[in-house]
Amino acid sequence: MGSIITLMTDFGTQDGYVGQMKGVIISINPEAQLIDIAHDISTFSILQAALVLKAVAMRFPNGTTHLVVIDPGVGSNRRPIAVRCNDSFYVGPDNGVLWPAISIDDNWEARDLSQCGLLPENPSSTFHGRDIFAVVAGHISKGIDFKSLGPIAHNLVKQEFPEIKTLPSGIVGEVIHVDRFGNLMTNIEANKLDKKVKGVIAGDVTFKDIKKYFSEVSEGEGIAMINSFGYLEIAVNKGRADEKLKMYNGSKVYVKWS
Amino acid sequence: MGSIITLMTDFGTQDGYVGQMKGVIISINPEAQLIDIAHDISTFSILQAALVLKAVAMRFPNGTTHLVVIDPGVGSNRRPIAVRCNDSFYVGPDNGVLWPAISIDDNWEARDLSQCGLLPENPSSTFHGRDIFAVVAGHISKGIDFKSLGPIAHNLVKQEFPEIKTLPSGIVGEVIHVDRFGNLMTNIEANKLDKKVKGVIAGDVTFKDIKKYFSEVSEGEGIAMINSFGYLEIAVNKGRADEKLKMYNGSKVYVKWS
Amino acid sequence: MGSIITLMTDFGTQDGYVGQMKGVIISINPEAQLIDIAHDISTFSILQAALVLKAVAMRFPNGTTHLVVIDPGVGSNRRPIAVRCNDSFYVGPDNGVLWPAISIDDNWEARDLSQCGLLPENPSSTFHGRDIFAVVAGHISKGIDFKSLGPIAHNLVKQEFPEIKTLPSGIVGEVIHVDRFGNLMTNIEANKLDKKVKGVIAGDVTFKDIKKYFSEVSEGEGIAMINSFGYLEIAVNKGRADEKLKMYNGSKVYVKWS
Repeated sequence: MGSIITLMTDFGTQDGYVGQMKGVIISINPEAQLIDIAHDISTFSILQAALVLKAVAMRFPNGTTHLVVIDPGVGSNRRPIAVRCNDSFYVGPDNGVLWPAISIDDNWEARDLSQCGLLPENPSSTFHGRDIFAVVAGHISKGIDFKSLGPIAHNLVKQEFPEIKTLPSGIVGEVIHVDRFGNLMTNIEANKLDKKVKGVIAGDVTFKDIKKYFSEVSEGEGIAMINSFGYLEIAVNKGRADEKLKMYNGSKVYVKWS
Repeated sequence: MGSIITLMTDFGTQDGYVGQMKGVIISINPEAQLIDIAHDISTFSILQAALVLKAVAMRFPNGTTHLVVIDPGVGSNRRPIAVRCNDSFYVGPDNGVLWPAISIDDNWEARDLSQCGLLPENPSSTFHGRDIFAVVAGHISKGIDFKSLGPIAHNLVKQEFPEIKTLPSGIVGEVIHVDRFGNLMTNIEANKLDKKVKGVIAGDVTFKDIKKYFSEVSEGEGIAMINSFGYLEIAVNKGRADEKLKMYNGSKVYVKWS
Repeated sequence: MGSIITLMTDFGTQDGYVGQMKGVIISINPEAQLIDIAHDISTFSILQAALVLKAVAMRFPNGTTHLVVIDPGVGSNRRPIAVRCNDSFYVGPDNGVLWPAISIDDNWEARDLSQCGLLPENPSSTFHGRDIFAVVAGHISKGIDFKSLGPIAHNLVKQEFPEIKTLPSGIVGEVIHVDRFGNLMTNIEANKLDKKVKGVIAGDVTFKDIKKYFSEVSEGEGIAMINSFGYLEIAVNKGRADEKLKMYNGSKVYVKWS
């Protein structure tokens, strides 16, 4: 019946950093149910982690605590924070990694953990994941009074996804994530595609329309479609779009109206 | 006391696909105990996943739900299915990946999930792992009436391992899996080795007999032995057989009778 | 309310070895809470696993069972053991991998599992992780009488970390672990740095002092600091020290007294 804590880091597992964090949490709350999301986020990639967190967090039930440690600024003056958002909780560095997940609406409140009374006396200057974030996540999962964690943190660091450009003739977006299968996710949301599409230009290929199923094209053929995040994606049926189209993060994608 | 759900995919973890699936399951059944088997199955490798699933599933207790998403045909007309087999459950695509695990005996029944009333109204066409399989696994783990999931699914897709050839002089098999250590697992089951063995020919090496322990040969030396799956395996004591013998999936192995 | 079992192996996950172990444990104790520490320990790297285990285990509460299978000598005459240490438990091969974690003080007792009555009749000669260690860990997590596991095991194999050399002019240590970020952990413990430091020489770089925060140096600049394990570490702020300094396991680090 323990509360649920998800874990996302760029620590990998083989150095034991994640293992130490799990031990700290379980020592505070032996009933916590730990759920690994990912520990192979690209090193220091706040944008990637923010994207994954937003997609994942919305699937978890209220009451979940999301522990996120992608923390290139550990030991600098970036604030450690905890956020309550629609009755779920987020714990991590104030570097933008939590921002897209918590800013879906205005129903959130952040606390500055810098002076939190729960922390060990001499926290490591390089491993706040263990000495600050895991400690606080453990206590939140046990139901500690959120307000007691610290003063309200204002002016959080915002990590926005790159913005699309809207032209009379269409939309210019870009690739913001290449997944394990080589699919190219763009920053163009499905609800922005509110006019009749004449074509999607990606690299040196033009797709005539936006399809619904991989199986609408032959194996090895490219396709423009709406992905499971609700964004325009360029893919190849049973193949890698990144290699076939030589596209990567930042590559432009142009949707042309009829 | 939630029920146990194992998860196996070829999604990796860093894109958040597995994280989303976990969120869906926990939202349906907060008591579910999630157990990761593997998320680094080679992309689209139905045979590898089928082999691992068969070996793993037989170790879990009755009542376990095995969620398996290796799904190159997602969005085509391949059926989503759930299978009850000796009081355990299997959920995944009907592409053969479940077949070796469930066909150990005839005590199984499959249901077609295509019209299952539990699913969201507009399931993603590319991510049935989240919108179909995780949903159904969550409900099965809560004890839903299995028959209510959909009509019986007949004529499942069968994924068989490559067959051995039985000659008067011996058996010709092949490598069906190379593990992390470079060990070469063949499709020759121990119980097929019912005559006196004169030699095992693998690549350009001949092993005089089938041994029991790595330690029967020196470090760096090759060995033919029965592995922990119960199949003939070619290995190297504290070394990599794949590199030493230049063998891989599909390489022939010949067992010669005396 | 199940007891906690942590798992560390060098098996990777994609061959299903870890999955089989989890199935065995859950079949014995369905209430066990399985916590993955790492399955990507470098193949056969007893020293790396020992280091990680020591750091991780001290963070877990009493009563935890730590299952560790880095086992290059499986099937030889190395003993399988279980150790009780300060009311926590360790199960694995007697090859030194458990030694640094259990030898923190003298409050431990080891049992030889070779003749343990709980084991299957014909355990696999290559996969003691499944047929011996997982079985015993499952039973320990259910509270079996520790003494019943087997006779006391004397003269455990010791895995020590390389020793530092103490000179009148300073300390000579070496790199014992390179982490995912390229940080170079040495074998020089913070409490050995009991004199005024004039410099730390690593590769062809001399650091004037030991700092506390990454942020005390600019991005891309090297730093000598005490890491979260309590050891001297050479790092680069937001960069890789291993690549910048061309150092690796075994590279010497020299601390010079004033």
